[in-house]
Amino acid sequence: MRNVNEDTITKIALAYHAHAEDPRFKQIMTGAIQHLHAFARDVALTEDELYQGIQFLTDVGHITDEKRQEFVLLSDALGLSMLVTALNNRKPAGCTESTVFGPFFVSNAPRYENGGDVANGAKGEPCFVSGRVMGLAGEPVPNAHIEVWQADSEGFYDIQHDGAESKARGSLRSLKDGSFHFRSITAESYPIPYDGPVGRMLKALGRHPWRPAHLHFMIEAPGYERLITHVFREGDRYLDSDAVFGVRSSLIADWKHHERGTAPDGTRVDTPFSTLDFNFVLNRAAAAVPHRSNAA
Amino acid sequence: MRNVNEDTITKIALAYHAHAEDPRFKQIMTGAIQHLHAFARDVALTEDELYQGIQFLTDVGHITDEKRQEFVLLSDALGLSMLVTALNNRKPAGCTESTVFGPFFVSNAPRYENGGDVANGAKGEPCFVSGRVMGLAGEPVPNAHIEVWQADSEGFYDIQHDGAESKARGSLRSLKDGSFHFRSITAESYPIPYDGPVGRMLKALGRHPWRPAHLHFMIEAPGYERLITHVFREGDRYLDSDAVFGVRSSLIADWKHHERGTAPDGTRVDTPFSTLDFNFVLNRAAAAVPHRSNAA
Ligand SMILES: [Fe+2]
Ligand SMILES: [Fe+2]
Repeated sequence: MRNVNEDTITKIALAYHAHAEDPRFKQIMTGAIQHLHAFARDVALTEDELYQGIQFLTDVGHITDEKRQEFVLLSDALGLSMLVTALNNRKPAGCTESTVFGPFFVSNAPRYENGGDVANGAKGEPCFVSGRVMGLAGEPVPNAHIEVWQADSEGFYDIQHDGAESKARGSLRSLKDGSFHFRSITAESYPIPYDGPVGRMLKALGRHPWRPAHLHFMIEAPGYERLITHVFREGDRYLDSDAVFGVRSSLIADWKHHERGTAPDGTRVDTPFSTLDFNFVLNRAAAAVPHRSNAA
Repeated sequence: MRNVNEDTITKIALAYHAHAEDPRFKQIMTGAIQHLHAFARDVALTEDELYQGIQFLTDVGHITDEKRQEFVLLSDALGLSMLVTALNNRKPAGCTESTVFGPFFVSNAPRYENGGDVANGAKGEPCFVSGRVMGLAGEPVPNAHIEVWQADSEGFYDIQHDGAESKARGSLRSLKDGSFHFRSITAESYPIPYDGPVGRMLKALGRHPWRPAHLHFMIEAPGYERLITHVFREGDRYLDSDAVFGVRSSLIADWKHHERGTAPDGTRVDTPFSTLDFNFVLNRAAAAVPHRSNAA
C-alpha cells in the first residue's frame, strides 16, 4: 500500500474498506469501485476527460433542486433506472409489467372520486380513462389506492409550471368490482427536460429527448405488490426510441378517438375526446415482505 | 426497442447513440453505460439503493462550490483519480513518478525568488526545501516553472481558511544548474474534508480521512513532460493508508529535524526546523505532443 500503481490500486482500494460495518454497503461499494476502475481502464480515460466528467456531474448537481432532479434524469437517460426497475420487478406471466417511476411523481396529490376530472384545468383534449384492478386469478381488487399523473398537451407536468396547483394528477380508489374511471386529458409525447447537462449529453450522443405519450399509474392494495407503471399510447412515433427506455409492449394501449358527443360516463363533450380502457393485474405480495402502505 | 427488459436494455441503450458525432465521446459513454449496467446487475441494486445513490450524488453536488470540489474528493477517495493519473503518466524508469493533483491547487499563486518564504505566515514549523530539476540523462533543467503548495500545521490549505491571502503556496524558477530552494513549513498529515457526503461515505466504509504529510509540486519546462507529484514524509503513520491512494515509495523522503540554529541558506532560526532535499527527474516530452506552457 506504500506503492500504489495502476496494477495494485483496485486491490488496495477494496482492502481499505475490509472492515466496513454494513456488509451490504461494503458489497455495493466493492462493485462500484471495481466497475469504476474497469471503466477507466477500458476506455483509457485521460486526465482531461476525468476532469470533464467531474465538471459534468457538478453541473448536474447544481441544476438539481426540490423541483428538478437532474440525477434521476441522468439515471433514466442512461437506462439505469429502467434496468433497476426490471431487476426488482420480476413477475409471473400475466401480471402487469413495471416501468420507470420518473422524476414527476408528487406525494399527497388531490383525491378524486371515480368519475372525477383529475385534469383540473390542465391543457389538453379530454380523455376518459377506465379499467379494472385485479389479481392473477382474475379476482377483483377493491379499494386499491390508484395514483395517476401525466404531462399536459404542452409537454409539462404541473410541477414544471409556475404555480402550486395540482393538475393532471390525483389519487382514487377502485370500486367493489375492482373497476375505476376518471376523466383526464389525452396523453401526448413530451421531451424530458433538455435545457440542462443531461440534454447536452443527449445532444452530443445524437439522441433525442422525447418520450412516447404515456399515463403514469401507481397502484397499491394490501396483499399485493405495489405496481409502478405507465400505459403507453399506441401509434406514438417515439415508442421505439423512448429517451428513458420505459416501453414494454404489454403496456401499449389504444387511446380511442371520438368526435364530440357523449362520453362513456354520460358526460356531454363539445370537442373531440379520447377514451382509454386498461386493466391492471397485480402480483401477490411475497409472504415474508411486509406490505408498504405508503408510497415512498 | 418496443420491449425493453433486463436482458435487452444495455444493447438498446448502446444502439441509441450509434450515431454520436464524436467517436471518442461515443466510446466513453459506451464504456460508462456498460459498466454502470454491469454494476447494477452484479450487486442486484434495489430501487431504494438507487435512490440513495442519487441522493448521495445530489448532496455531493450541493456542497460543491468554487472553493470546495466534493466530486474531485469523491474521485480521489475512490481511487479513480490516482488510477487515471497512473494510466496517463507511464514513464521510463528513473523519472520522478506522478501522483494525484488533488483539489487544492490554485493558479496564479504568488511568485517567489529562490530563498523566498512561501509560507507567507502559514502556521507551522519552518522547513527549508532544496532540490534539483533534471532530465533522465542527469542534465540540469534551468528555468523550470515550479509550483509548490501544502497544508498548514492545522491541516488546512489557505483556500480552506477565510481570507484571500495565498499562504504555503507559490511558484518559483529553477536556477542555471537546475537547483531551487525555498522556505516553507514542515508538512504534516491532514484529513481530507470529512464534514460532507464523502466523509460520511468514508465513515460508513470504516475508513479514515487522513493523508500522510506531503508537499505538492507541479514542474514544467519546455521539452519535458509536465510533472504533477508530491513528496511524502518518511515516518508518517498514514503512509500505508493514504485516503486518496497517492503514495508511491519513490516519492517518500526524509524531512530532517534540526534544533534551532542556522538553516542551510544561512538564515538564523530560533525554533526547531526541518530540511528537505529532493531531486526531480522529468520525462522528455513526446515529440508529437505540443508542450503545454500553462498549468490548466
Ligand atoms: Fe412521464
Ligand atoms: Fe495535499
